[in-house]
Amino acid sequence: MPNPLDAHRRRIDAIDAKLLQLLQERNALAAEVLTTKIDAGLPVFVPEREQAKVAAFRRAAGELGLDAGWAEDFLRMIMSSSRDRQSHADFPQCPGGSRTILLVGGAGQLGRCYGRAFTASGHTVRTLETGDWEQVDQLAADADAVIVTVPIRVTEQVIARLGPHLTPDTVLADFTSLKAGPTAAMLAAHAGPVLCLHPMHGPDVANLSKQLITACPARRPAASAWLRDQFRLWGLRVVELVPAEHDRIMDQVQGLRHFVALLHGSFLRETNLAPADILALSSPIYRAELMMTGRIFAQNAELYADIVFASTERRRLLERFLTHHQQLAELVRKDDKAGFVREFEAIGAFFGDFAAQARAESGYLIHRLADRFV
Amino acid sequence: MPNPLDAHRRRIDAIDAKLLQLLQERNALAAEVLTTKIDAGLPVFVPEREQAKVAAFRRAAGELGLDAGWAEDFLRMIMSSSRDRQSHADFPQCPGGSRTILLVGGAGQLGRCYGRAFTASGHTVRTLETGDWEQVDQLAADADAVIVTVPIRVTEQVIARLGPHLTPDTVLADFTSLKAGPTAAMLAAHAGPVLCLHPMHGPDVANLSKQLITACPARRPAASAWLRDQFRLWGLRVVELVPAEHDRIMDQVQGLRHFVALLHGSFLRETNLAPADILALSSPIYRAELMMTGRIFAQNAELYADIVFASTERRRLLERFLTHHQQLAELVRKDDKAGFVREFEAIGAFFGDFAAQARAESGYLIHRLADRFV
Repeated sequence: MPNPLDAHRRRIDAIDAKLLQLLQERNALAAEVLTTKIDAGLPVFVPEREQAKVAAFRRAAGELGLDAGWAEDFLRMIMSSSRDRQSHADFPQCPGGSRTILLVGGAGQLGRCYGRAFTASGHTVRTLETGDWEQVDQLAADADAVIVTVPIRVTEQVIARLGPHLTPDTVLADFTSLKAGPTAAMLAAHAGPVLCLHPMHGPDVANLSKQLITACPARRPAASAWLRDQFRLWGLRVVELVPAEHDRIMDQVQGLRHFVALLHGSFLRETNLAPADILALSSPIYRAELMMTGRIFAQNAELYADIVFASTERRRLLERFLTHHQQLAELVRKDDKAGFVREFEAIGAFFGDFAAQARAESGYLIHRLADRFV
Repeated sequence: MPNPLDAHRRRIDAIDAKLLQLLQERNALAAEVLTTKIDAGLPVFVPEREQAKVAAFRRAAGELGLDAGWAEDFLRMIMSSSRDRQSHADFPQCPGGSRTILLVGGAGQLGRCYGRAFTASGHTVRTLETGDWEQVDQLAADADAVIVTVPIRVTEQVIARLGPHLTPDTVLADFTSLKAGPTAAMLAAHAGPVLCLHPMHGPDVANLSKQLITACPARRPAASAWLRDQFRLWGLRVVELVPAEHDRIMDQVQGLRHFVALLHGSFLRETNLAPADILALSSPIYRAELMMTGRIFAQNAELYADIVFASTERRRLLERFLTHHQQLAELVRKDDKAGFVREFEAIGAFFGDFAAQARAESGYLIHRLADRFV
């Protein structure tokens, strides 16, 4: 007896085959658009154009009775696919032609990520590793920019060692995740242009497009404008920020977050509750939480220790966090539910409209996570 | 002068129009498949079929030179769209015909969510609220199931009050997020079948399909089999679990997680760092973290207090968590980086292969989040 659903399933399969074919055609066209942009020296990612395209797609979906929000997700997935392909294509070059860039620690993951991008844009990339200091003069002498991308614990001493070998117009830059110390070190070690950078993404991104980098031109900004232009042409979002404010926020975004993730993982071990056992019973939101904690432990312990122990200020913030925990825990110890509710409401007032945005945005995440992994 | 990109963009627009049309056709077919399934009493969500479909789609995408992982996400988005439409359609009914269900606290968010589902499957749904106790005998007398879905702080007293009004074959069930206390209360209050449930999702899900519910048939399991069948027919994943193990895991998944989110939000307020200010400088992973903390404060303070203060065991776990924090913080206070690295590595060993899975899965989330919100 034939299954009554078979005919429908065959028609769905035929539609899926057509969908894939259209996606392939669309990607080919997007690749041609990219080549044309690069030839014309146009930026790869133009937020306004993307917004307009999304709005038109939502309208068209709505007219067909499809959910507009869903259609937007769908289009963004398609566009992200063509952006990912850009990582394999050539990259546009900043005005003023090819430069020479020395990446100090360029064999590290982040160094290689940027090395590939500079090379793809037609620049000359050199690297200097621990064993290469004898050649430092040859490597640094005619470099347009020297970018220090070494572990945070050795950044300042590497900068001091580099200083005497730089020529006056070379841009000295760094990728350190803390900015006050390295900025002072660069200004002390080098009399020329100084640009303090912090790429706010991992080395394993498919593409630099849409990623964030903070920049503080600490001396002679005009001399490093080409470098910031190059970042923007790759689609990076360049946010200018002074070192003190950068560090104040990063102490929380990086220091506290990594400490709390460690605390979470460490407590699961302490209570002998294996992540895999919890997973079967996790709501999508706890699943997301567990994955964001777990990802830490697939990475390098030293790297995380460097982030958590990055500065005295950061360690002080963590001590203050413990004191705060002790105060909140008092409410639990005393079974003071009314006090807990008051604290909750005060935080709600502090968060304001952000809480509603957070609910919508995390709701989207939860939905995607449930689609994909459950 | 015509823009050289205009012709390409027009072709991309034409492809997008075709994509939307195909999606509309596909949704219509999927809706017909659903109707056929409901008429035949077949379950709405069959994991094996979905896996087979995904595998075939990945293969087909690969043959066209498209990335298979990306194609899988894409297909899952399409399938989730047709599942969401199912929430507006009729729902299949469990074998044995229409039942009468009394939802005690059925006017609450979760009660309404399940009330809609029972009604859509052709069952008779009644509700009992605070002011309705005078009618309790009429409401409960011929009910096939009575489900208690009231705030955790009053669950046990509501169960005790209901007991004398139930007939011997009525299934007594509850939706409480803690199971030991309510299970004991139900077994004490009612001599008939008892089923302890915990729907592990919010009331605002588009669809029950793929959501998780824990179930413990605490007395006469056969008498409540129809209810568990009904859940499965809606696509819910029913996990059977004894109350003690449920509570041990939930103390962490719910109690600790909500406490830590409160601690995070509370510390941002203490340090006067507004979420909106951090957002501009957040990596996608911190953005996800911030959204999952922020979502809490768009919700009801009492509800969260109930979760955190749910039981003495839960409060003890939170005290143990503080002690553990004090120990870890010692490493920071003493600047003991080596100790920190040792602790990190011990946790890594405890997490084992899960860490790699977590990295992949959270990487997917980060990618989606960057696509959608940046």
